[in-house]
Amino acid sequence: MKKIMNQPSAYVDEALDGLCQAYPHVYRRAGEAGRVIARAQAPRQGKVGVVSGGGSGHLPLFTGYVGTGMLDACAVGNVFAGPTLGDCADAMRIAEQGAGVLRVYGNYGGDRMNFDMAGELLELEGVRSETVLVNDDVASAGREEAHKRRGVAGVVYAFKLAGAAAERPEASLGDVVRIARKGVDACRSIGVALTPCIVPEAGKETFSLGADEMEMGMGIHGEPGIRRGKLASADTIAGEMLARLVDDLGIGRGERVSVLVNSLGATPLEELFILYRAVAQELSALGVGIVMPMVGRYATSMEMTGASLTLQRLDDELEALLRAPADCPFWCR
Amino acid sequence: MKKIMNQPSAYVDEALDGLCQAYPHVYRRAGEAGRVIARAQAPRQGKVGVVSGGGSGHLPLFTGYVGTGMLDACAVGNVFAGPTLGDCADAMRIAEQGAGVLRVYGNYGGDRMNFDMAGELLELEGVRSETVLVNDDVASAGREEAHKRRGVAGVVYAFKLAGAAAERPEASLGDVVRIARKGVDACRSIGVALTPCIVPEAGKETFSLGADEMEMGMGIHGEPGIRRGKLASADTIAGEMLARLVDDLGIGRGERVSVLVNSLGATPLEELFILYRAVAQELSALGVGIVMPMVGRYATSMEMTGASLTLQRLDDELEALLRAPADCPFWCR
Repeated sequence: MKKIMNQPSAYVDEALDGLCQAYPHVYRRAGEAGRVIARAQAPRQGKVGVVSGGGSGHLPLFTGYVGTGMLDACAVGNVFAGPTLGDCADAMRIAEQGAGVLRVYGNYGGDRMNFDMAGELLELEGVRSETVLVNDDVASAGREEAHKRRGVAGVVYAFKLAGAAAERPEASLGDVVRIARKGVDACRSIGVALTPCIVPEAGKETFSLGADEMEMGMGIHGEPGIRRGKLASADTIAGEMLARLVDDLGIGRGERVSVLVNSLGATPLEELFILYRAVAQELSALGVGIVMPMVGRYATSMEMTGASLTLQRLDDELEALLRAPADCPFWCR
Repeated sequence: MKKIMNQPSAYVDEALDGLCQAYPHVYRRAGEAGRVIARAQAPRQGKVGVVSGGGSGHLPLFTGYVGTGMLDACAVGNVFAGPTLGDCADAMRIAEQGAGVLRVYGNYGGDRMNFDMAGELLELEGVRSETVLVNDDVASAGREEAHKRRGVAGVVYAFKLAGAAAERPEASLGDVVRIARKGVDACRSIGVALTPCIVPEAGKETFSLGADEMEMGMGIHGEPGIRRGKLASADTIAGEMLARLVDDLGIGRGERVSVLVNSLGATPLEELFILYRAVAQELSALGVGIVMPMVGRYATSMEMTGASLTLQRLDDELEALLRAPADCPFWCR
């Protein structure tokens, strides 16, 4: 793989500049270090703030999902590295409109430490806040250790559901927290990786796999998966991923889900649709309905080859929030 | 690179199935061979039809741009191979609503032959039709041989402008042809390739480049470019691409353009925004305004690494058409 960039150390800041220059009506750089992406227009007074944060290298995750109906602000780390304490605190300060702030982000140790400390800092400044961790990756720990699971593409659903809930004029911090938790509890993902990516400042590939190999369950930073094996057919891959999610989520006949077939970066739309076809067929055979499927690049690892599958179980409340409008260049319906 | 697929011979049809199953309110498979993607709902009677066609492997190009405000139907070839005569004729039959059909597609020999013959066939059936060829790739021939230039990402602008013109209740075939020609005449693109892709049924890479090389001007099927050289910095690449387009288009101070920074597939959003930052800076220095920039994957070569830059010069008429709403999952504003 090869990268189009200038100085590796400028990768993140130049990408953020470009993002904000391309969509100046949506995004602006903010925070003391410029490492917060905030809405170009401040949200209404009295709105519950919804913030996130995470490492760079996953666009449109995390920063791309700032916008009306989604996030208010997002703290931005270096590639595959969490945001600093200062960035997390700045994101929360910007998001606070007098009704408190929800921190919703993927379950990674560094992010937790900094966001927790930022929460304590902000409490001293009189800002109430709560945390909802996204831990949708079934491959990263067993069901009995679900609190250890990492957050992957399911983060996008959490942003959308919490963001839509927070736009409602009557919503309290407690309401938004309840929705975010309910969404996360009903969401499961798993990924498969085929080729690695390059972290700009490291300059080398994040892992290596044989020319005919894949790794089921690998994380979005190249964290080890469940098993390595020969590259299987799309239908076999889809079948294995779906079986693991259906089992873990315990979903069955008469229920409905939104499905996200996500590219880790290089895997093209053609192949995502081949996977979606298999997933739709199997869900139909199980009697599970599909609502608002999403197929594309939502949570990537730069130029990594591979894909992930996410199931978001829906009821009427969550479906209405998922369907609610959002004004964000990367939420296209 | 590795691919997620079943039988290579099923790659295109399974991807089309998945596309139509994911967005059944937008797309349907049509035509005798199932190789036409048509709007799920028939356009209004009396509307000028706008059709295109091309090889597969470029999603969201070409088929993804079927939808209200864009194409009525699209003939679909195998990967990197043009659609058949029968598919071209079927696409036109489906698009005809009594006001004639515009064929707008990239300037490739095979596509031209089949679309021209389809036009003759349809004339016998009483359907008027016209052709507008998109030839935006400045690297594929000199200015004095512009009729030999290939169509690349600029096809997206041609679809949008012609599609928006055709939605106007009073638009005649002549009006839509005039807009499409005007748009194509004001559009220029150039690409740079870093790594190849694999055509499923061939099973091998489309070209080879050294580990530290890039090829400026390479086409979207791996057609030879202008020069091979060492992989340059993003700013240098953006500067060279922009200079070639500005010179060829003859654009200057006080004018305005829409800019498309497009990934050929694997190149991530981060790197597209780094390129956009450089392009925006240089256009600003030239006194050229940017309207509605687009940054993302609009015309790809599956998992190829690289990017293209397109400039679409705008006046009030074209800008209004570009801004007009379109209901298509891959046109997100």
